[in-house]
Amino acid sequence: MSVPKAYQPDYCNPIEKQQIKIKEFLMAGGKEAHGWAARDASGHLSPFNFSRRVQRDGDVTIKVLFCGLCHTDLHVIKNEWGNAMYPLVVGVVTDVAPGVTKFKAGDTVGVGYFVDSKGFESYCPQLVQTSNGVDLFDGSTTQGGFSDVLIVSQDYLVRVPESLSPEGTAPLLCAGITVFSPMVRFGLNVPGKHLGVVGLGGLGHMAVKFGKAFGMKVTVVSTSPGKREEALDRLGADAFLVSRDPEQMKAAASTMDGIIDTVSAEHTVTELLELLKPMGQMVVVGLPAKPLEVPAISLVAGGKRVAGSGGGGIGECQAMLDFAGEHGITADVEVVGMDYVNTAIQRLERNDVRYRFVVDVAGSNLSAAA
Amino acid sequence: MSVPKAYQPDYCNPIEKQQIKIKEFLMAGGKEAHGWAARDASGHLSPFNFSRRVQRDGDVTIKVLFCGLCHTDLHVIKNEWGNAMYPLVVGVVTDVAPGVTKFKAGDTVGVGYFVDSKGFESYCPQLVQTSNGVDLFDGSTTQGGFSDVLIVSQDYLVRVPESLSPEGTAPLLCAGITVFSPMVRFGLNVPGKHLGVVGLGGLGHMAVKFGKAFGMKVTVVSTSPGKREEALDRLGADAFLVSRDPEQMKAAASTMDGIIDTVSAEHTVTELLELLKPMGQMVVVGLPAKPLEVPAISLVAGGKRVAGSGGGGIGECQAMLDFAGEHGITADVEVVGMDYVNTAIQRLERNDVRYRFVVDVAGSNLSAAA
Repeated sequence: MSVPKAYQPDYCNPIEKQQIKIKEFLMAGGKEAHGWAARDASGHLSPFNFSRRVQRDGDVTIKVLFCGLCHTDLHVIKNEWGNAMYPLVVGVVTDVAPGVTKFKAGDTVGVGYFVDSKGFESYCPQLVQTSNGVDLFDGSTTQGGFSDVLIVSQDYLVRVPESLSPEGTAPLLCAGITVFSPMVRFGLNVPGKHLGVVGLGGLGHMAVKFGKAFGMKVTVVSTSPGKREEALDRLGADAFLVSRDPEQMKAAASTMDGIIDTVSAEHTVTELLELLKPMGQMVVVGLPAKPLEVPAISLVAGGKRVAGSGGGGIGECQAMLDFAGEHGITADVEVVGMDYVNTAIQRLERNDVRYRFVVDVAGSNLSAAA
Repeated sequence: MSVPKAYQPDYCNPIEKQQIKIKEFLMAGGKEAHGWAARDASGHLSPFNFSRRVQRDGDVTIKVLFCGLCHTDLHVIKNEWGNAMYPLVVGVVTDVAPGVTKFKAGDTVGVGYFVDSKGFESYCPQLVQTSNGVDLFDGSTTQGGFSDVLIVSQDYLVRVPESLSPEGTAPLLCAGITVFSPMVRFGLNVPGKHLGVVGLGGLGHMAVKFGKAFGMKVTVVSTSPGKREEALDRLGADAFLVSRDPEQMKAAASTMDGIIDTVSAEHTVTELLELLKPMGQMVVVGLPAKPLEVPAISLVAGGKRVAGSGGGGIGECQAMLDFAGEHGITADVEVVGMDYVNTAIQRLERNDVRYRFVVDVAGSNLSAAA
């Protein structure tokens, strides 16, 4: 069976291992794993036993410690295949296959939301997500991180700095890298510059922390006046703007060098673009269902830009973790047991969490139903 | 009279001459000038005698040779003050004031669409346009270039390379710089990369010429299949896409590194963004009346950007002219006498010009009405 053509766009550099025959591994016995999974569109999770892929050369076997939970997961369990299990894992290496040089047993490692890719990494059409992906080697479904064991190529693992708590690190592998990658790539990381962070949730609170660690002036822009205190006191933002207050917004016009817009709800961006100085840049990382309405004059008159960004590559992810380790940055999390996961999902749907749930996988009895 | 506060945003670096008192020059006698102007919203131009400002230290007096005409001018004469006269002048220096070190009598020079600015130049709120602007010194109205003489500070003059025809150079000072500036600033000038040029008018035809001179592969994207021949044969583009043909567009998906969208008519951009490779960038230089509808996923999924750009600074403008001189690039123009200008305006409204009108000011009898 040859690799489907759709998997080989010309801008995605194929690498040798892509050549390996896929069927060879199909049906081969793998490692027994115990986790929790959704089976239907209700999204209700319950215990689930399955097999992980065979540990191949270059693979690392990981005991899962903590696994994050975010809105993308909600979409997955409600709309997609019934066997969703969650990514954003932090765990401990328990076994390494021949050819693994980067990690050894006992290392604390992280797995993000993808486990295989080519060329542009997170922007590669061939990307294999950590859950609900199709393994490029054996065609099996990737089963995420809500289970005791995970097997991943060393090329898609990152090293977790010792100074960081594993539970606070798990969401860095998704929310963290999602804001860190564009902040670095688009230059929203310059000391002394003024950063606007729109929306104060899982992504937004990480953007505030990184922005402050970069030495920036950080202003949180939110529809909720009630978030002022947490923005300023808990997260250390320098200023807070209520986006629904036209006077506050007008007073802040042309003051920001960059903006990171984390809002997934429908919202207008014209007044956000007005906050930017000439040649300023706004990065969109949320996914509102309706198109953004961007007046051309809002961009042309100030030479401004609107960028989009999704996730980040493995190199960026390691750089993010190293930076987080240096500055003592973790996500603010609420750690829950696996038996609480269905409640956590309901609360997440109401945005009732400051700012991310993390499941204590290793500390949970994975075979007990809720 | 102090400079109004609105003219001094903190990101616009004030320079010394801003301090000069404005009223001092008001009503002072200037140089007699003869030109053509519109007096009311009909936009009809007819002979007009007026005074240019006093030649101040650092000023250069220019005999106007050629003056370009573009869509922005149409807006100005129909909607704004009745005394619009046109920018984009190429002329010959006839006199220089004390302090002028950069130019001497006999030099061929260009004046773009602005004659004073601070800090960010073309993005400065304090910008003084060449026509319909308010002189920062004496409060008088700037009167554009449809007249025999023009007086401009040496700081807002560019030198026209000897190898270029003055009539073909005039539109470079607006259409040329409008596409050249973002192409350079946003990296759409890399040899071997693939550039899409959307819309083949005054701006688009310059983008094709610059793109080819940068050593890029250039594809013209147009709604008009009839423009294929001129795009490929006359302008040297490598390929041509009919944007209304979904199959052509689909086949070209993910092939372009950058796009410059010059269209001012309402149009959708989703399918243009799909032409971009991951991390590609689209620059908008047209001004459609309705907001662009940009699906967040179109940006996020590929880490793409939409930028806006308007005009360019004096330094960029000189760099553009030098580059044009090196590569023998001028605009394709139709030269007309001043007595044809009202007809030219009508044809311009119908896009009936390949690709820009230029008025032969020096060769016209400015006192004869049409």
